[in-house]
Amino acid sequence: MGRDLSALFDPMSVAILGASDDPAKYGHAIAAQAVRAPHRRPVHLVNRRGGTVLGRTAATSLTAIGEPVDLVVISVPAAGFEAAVDEALACGARSIVAITAGFAETGPAGRERQRAIAEQVRAAGAVMVGPNCLGIADNTTDLHLASDHFTSGGVALLSQSGNLALELQLRFGAHDLGFSRFVSLGNQADVTLVDLLADCALHEGTRAIAVYAEDFADGRAFAEAAAAAGKPVVLLTGGRGDASARSAQSHTGALTTSADVVTAACRDAGIELVATPRELTVVLAALDSGRRSRSHRVAIVTDGGGHGVIAADAVEASGLTVPELGPATQEGLRAALWEQSSVVNPVDLAGMGEQNPASYAAAVTALLDAEETDAVLMTGYFGGYAAGENGLGAGGTALAAGETAAARAIADHQSTVATPLVVQSMYPRSSSCRTLASAGIAVFGATEDAARALAALTAPSHPASSGILPLPPAAEPLRETGYLATRRALEAAGIPFPAVREVRDEEQLLAAADGISGPYVLKALHLLHKSDAGGVALNLSDRDALLATFRVMHTRLGAPAYSVEAMADLSDGIELIVGVNHDPRFGPVAMVGLGGVLAEALRDVAFALAPVSAERARTLLRSLRTATLLDGVRGRPAVDVSAAAEAIERITAFAAAHPEIAELEINPLLVRPDGVLALDSRAVLA
Amino acid sequence: MGRDLSALFDPMSVAILGASDDPAKYGHAIAAQAVRAPHRRPVHLVNRRGGTVLGRTAATSLTAIGEPVDLVVISVPAAGFEAAVDEALACGARSIVAITAGFAETGPAGRERQRAIAEQVRAAGAVMVGPNCLGIADNTTDLHLASDHFTSGGVALLSQSGNLALELQLRFGAHDLGFSRFVSLGNQADVTLVDLLADCALHEGTRAIAVYAEDFADGRAFAEAAAAAGKPVVLLTGGRGDASARSAQSHTGALTTSADVVTAACRDAGIELVATPRELTVVLAALDSGRRSRSHRVAIVTDGGGHGVIAADAVEASGLTVPELGPATQEGLRAALWEQSSVVNPVDLAGMGEQNPASYAAAVTALLDAEETDAVLMTGYFGGYAAGENGLGAGGTALAAGETAAARAIADHQSTVATPLVVQSMYPRSSSCRTLASAGIAVFGATEDAARALAALTAPSHPASSGILPLPPAAEPLRETGYLATRRALEAAGIPFPAVREVRDEEQLLAAADGISGPYVLKALHLLHKSDAGGVALNLSDRDALLATFRVMHTRLGAPAYSVEAMADLSDGIELIVGVNHDPRFGPVAMVGLGGVLAEALRDVAFALAPVSAERARTLLRSLRTATLLDGVRGRPAVDVSAAAEAIERITAFAAAHPEIAELEINPLLVRPDGVLALDSRAVLA
Repeated sequence: MGRDLSALFDPMSVAILGASDDPAKYGHAIAAQAVRAPHRRPVHLVNRRGGTVLGRTAATSLTAIGEPVDLVVISVPAAGFEAAVDEALACGARSIVAITAGFAETGPAGRERQRAIAEQVRAAGAVMVGPNCLGIADNTTDLHLASDHFTSGGVALLSQSGNLALELQLRFGAHDLGFSRFVSLGNQADVTLVDLLADCALHEGTRAIAVYAEDFADGRAFAEAAAAAGKPVVLLTGGRGDASARSAQSHTGALTTSADVVTAACRDAGIELVATPRELTVVLAALDSGRRSRSHRVAIVTDGGGHGVIAADAVEASGLTVPELGPATQEGLRAALWEQSSVVNPVDLAGMGEQNPASYAAAVTALLDAEETDAVLMTGYFGGYAAGENGLGAGGTALAAGETAAARAIADHQSTVATPLVVQSMYPRSSSCRTLASAGIAVFGATEDAARALAALTAPSHPASSGILPLPPAAEPLRETGYLATRRALEAAGIPFPAVREVRDEEQLLAAADGISGPYVLKALHLLHKSDAGGVALNLSDRDALLATFRVMHTRLGAPAYSVEAMADLSDGIELIVGVNHDPRFGPVAMVGLGGVLAEALRDVAFALAPVSAERARTLLRSLRTATLLDGVRGRPAVDVSAAAEAIERITAFAAAHPEIAELEINPLLVRPDGVLALDSRAVLA
Repeated sequence: MGRDLSALFDPMSVAILGASDDPAKYGHAIAAQAVRAPHRRPVHLVNRRGGTVLGRTAATSLTAIGEPVDLVVISVPAAGFEAAVDEALACGARSIVAITAGFAETGPAGRERQRAIAEQVRAAGAVMVGPNCLGIADNTTDLHLASDHFTSGGVALLSQSGNLALELQLRFGAHDLGFSRFVSLGNQADVTLVDLLADCALHEGTRAIAVYAEDFADGRAFAEAAAAAGKPVVLLTGGRGDASARSAQSHTGALTTSADVVTAACRDAGIELVATPRELTVVLAALDSGRRSRSHRVAIVTDGGGHGVIAADAVEASGLTVPELGPATQEGLRAALWEQSSVVNPVDLAGMGEQNPASYAAAVTALLDAEETDAVLMTGYFGGYAAGENGLGAGGTALAAGETAAARAIADHQSTVATPLVVQSMYPRSSSCRTLASAGIAVFGATEDAARALAALTAPSHPASSGILPLPPAAEPLRETGYLATRRALEAAGIPFPAVREVRDEEQLLAAADGISGPYVLKALHLLHKSDAGGVALNLSDRDALLATFRVMHTRLGAPAYSVEAMADLSDGIELIVGVNHDPRFGPVAMVGLGGVLAEALRDVAFALAPVSAERARTLLRSLRTATLLDGVRGRPAVDVSAAAEAIERITAFAAAHPEIAELEINPLLVRPDGVLALDSRAVLA
């Protein structure tokens, strides 16, 4: 169902249009890479002025090559770009890599220009990466169409930045990581991030997909493709920019930022979200072993307490736990270690490793086998003896040999168990640590990297990352979104509200009072922020209070209409806020949080792609800082979380079926010990 | 006023008791270091069995040396330790470095043993580091009494862990950092962390003080010494999580303090708190230039957007801002850069750096000079040309030369301005980056390190770190701490409470009702958690309601006494919680937060060493997540923050003057638009 990109990643022949002998030109660098694999497929260098490029005779045009070309790299000035595309398609090109810049990134005219070109390319049944890209590479097909050579490995990198790709290349080396594919996304005029993600998901040579993107184009499709990829997807992204700058009309909008949306989408899609190239590398190094932690319990072993203490804090700070070890494990360690060794968690060899490096292997082995351990972290000096860094002169040699043997024993044992080992060493490049690394054990120099790696190895403990619900078919659009109309639509969707009457004058007001039992709520209608404008009066005890308040409010606001509602009993409930915003890239995004007067002050909210299942809604509610309020505090009763979760499912499904609603908000949604009641709502049309 | 440690750091002569020729013995490693500077002072090697050590004839005892020794290193089995100390003092030693282990870390008996030795040492007018330490070093006096040699530099390291010191030594190299002094704290039986901190503050050769400690001993004195140091103090501490606390106790007998207290103490003392050796190194590298940011506005420059975007997010995540540049600065950049360069913040050369590296210098210079910039971050590829990493072959040479020239220009300009430049480079070890580094510009390979460095350079924006108030003289201790007694004491200290009467029976209850205007509050006295036990009834409208409630409550609880109080008007106020706990290490610690029913659920609290000035109290209140509640939300009035701040000053001063109170809590402290009212309080005696 995805687009066929075989002509892009494994073309039968390649031509570089704009190949150059001038080292300062990009067409030189890319040609130099392209000719590195002459035997895999014909590589033609084309230069309008002919002559020789890299010692070969350059053709003066694609046509002059005299045979069809499957993939054409276009690196010519913008003025000649359309002509180059025409020629490429005429010569039977099935794929184009467009280096040439000067299109969407320069403004509307350029955007229109690249749109037309993309249409032409698609009409010809071809595919195009770029324009304004830096090229592509596929190490599994020996295709090198970028200015740099990328080390071979299992990571497919889809990047909007060339320099970040170079930094990753530099960082990957330390962890024996390499690239299966590299694609510089450019302006995504034809082939998009989503197309490439879907293709790399099917690509045998790719074990993990790394993405650097600022513009997600269709963010929801990106998240869905990632959720379906079946291999790790790690996203490096930046720029809160546009969405957070948007001045939102509702409080939901005010609380929503693009960073929140991206974070929620990544969690829902099972994407590992990272903030820097270094963090991206750490996460990929961790996931490369293929091992995963069953849960979040980490056992730590060190020789000389400091590193254990620091590592335990770092591991806990990354959301994992470092629980005390069970009696059986402690006895096993006690038998294998010194009297002064500490067998709680962190385990501290307390100098034994310095006398007998085999004790490292004994401790790590015991912890990898322990029932109550989901992952093991060895931290500190290990590696120092082989690195010859210890101050023990002659004695060092024996210790180095012992350390190397311990490394082999640890590597061997790791290969027999599923529980992952992660290592932090002061000497990550020592031969002992290299022995561990070549057994697929992730080794880091920095404690925080090891902690981040352990977090990446830990499978999400709740179903929040179990995928994304499909968007429901669009319902009959709402014709108007006044308060009462929105209320009616939500009631029809199964959300209960208190009894209400719309009134325009005192006579209707008093009639309404007779039809509803007090105390009352009076709201002025058709005002944006009713409560801020003083257009909401609560707890009006009887019809006299209602009438008096109506007169004051009407004189002040002169609203065209008002609503009279039954005042709900707030004494034993919790007020939630439930909102859904239509994000331009990710579609409907739900926000659930503590509502009422405290909503803005606390900003205690959680986000998820809508629609949200009741089960997911429960997880979101439990993720709130104030979740304990749901269970009742200080003698208050627990509230009906199931009813709240079902209401959230209904509200988000409703909003997802109404794309014409830019912002929908129910605040407060009163959650009682028995059921829920929506006390106010508003909708803003797109 | 501090202790004289000159005999420790610059002794006239040194003897190593337990010097050994066996490379596996610590007495070998330390002797090997000690003899490295034979000309500075006599170094005597002592071994009970005589013979030769390191090719020198070893004395069989200190006495056998035949001349007084100023400093004695004791590295003998624990059994012989007391004898060794006796001999050292007898030979006129003014300082002892006690390597020997087996004291406080082994339990109460060991603790008592080391206490007695420390007393003896002090009585002799000498000083002792350790026992259970790894030695000391002072590069400014050529004193090397540890197993490893520490590179010379400006950092004094006071550490409870030897391996962490070794990791720092390895990390310092990349930033041209080195050590003025190293002290392994050991058990601090005599010389403490505080003594050493105070001495290093006065030490000319020390520019910054780095501390790794799990046990702060007298934490308040530590914080006060750091606040008075007059040079940067950076603290790496563990034991903040549950697991590390467990481990810290098990391996040095450390009494760990809660993370909240340590964090508050560091903020109040102006100590930079870090979590890992890597972060410690980054902060020291940043502070080493001596430059500081005036405020939090960072300008970023890169060549090729990705790094700029990632860096901007990292900088903002570290609490700084990346504001848009002023028109004058933008025009200046516009004139100096390409048309396609972006002159907003982050500034993006957009490829110009690749054609003309001088553009880096132009942009950095303009930003360092800009009015609206407090610090500049250059991030990304810079360094790559000199590193020969670019794919431009021959053209690279010219670019490398241009880059080197740009580096010199940047370094020269930095030397003329106070605004600091921090650099993140993919090639931190390139010659261009080395040129920057040798001009005192901090260069990092990782974006997150550069962001952390910028945060360290930014002076605290509020007075919270302007020092620590002295403890007031102890007041007349409270004889009892029942609710009413505590109330009276607090009222005497200037904290207003509602009218109250203590009653024991219905007659007294009704009399109280006559003396106080309703509605009423009824509280059962002498119960620990009144409200949880149902011993508090609010809002009793009249004497009948009061009487009825009294009968029910008395039947259920049968409390010896009750209080009748005037019910406060809660409608327009905010409920705070104000508490003071006596921490065993840091003394009285104040906690201020949102109170009432939400207090536990929100855990929105801030800590500070008590007493707290009204000004500091205001800062603490403003630091709460829910601070906006103070200004009134959704049409509520703003509350009297000044009155709250003054009440906090009085409450914390009161608690600080009453060390016999282990815990004091006022919850809620009702803050109204005009003034405050304490509605409940409790005190627990130590």
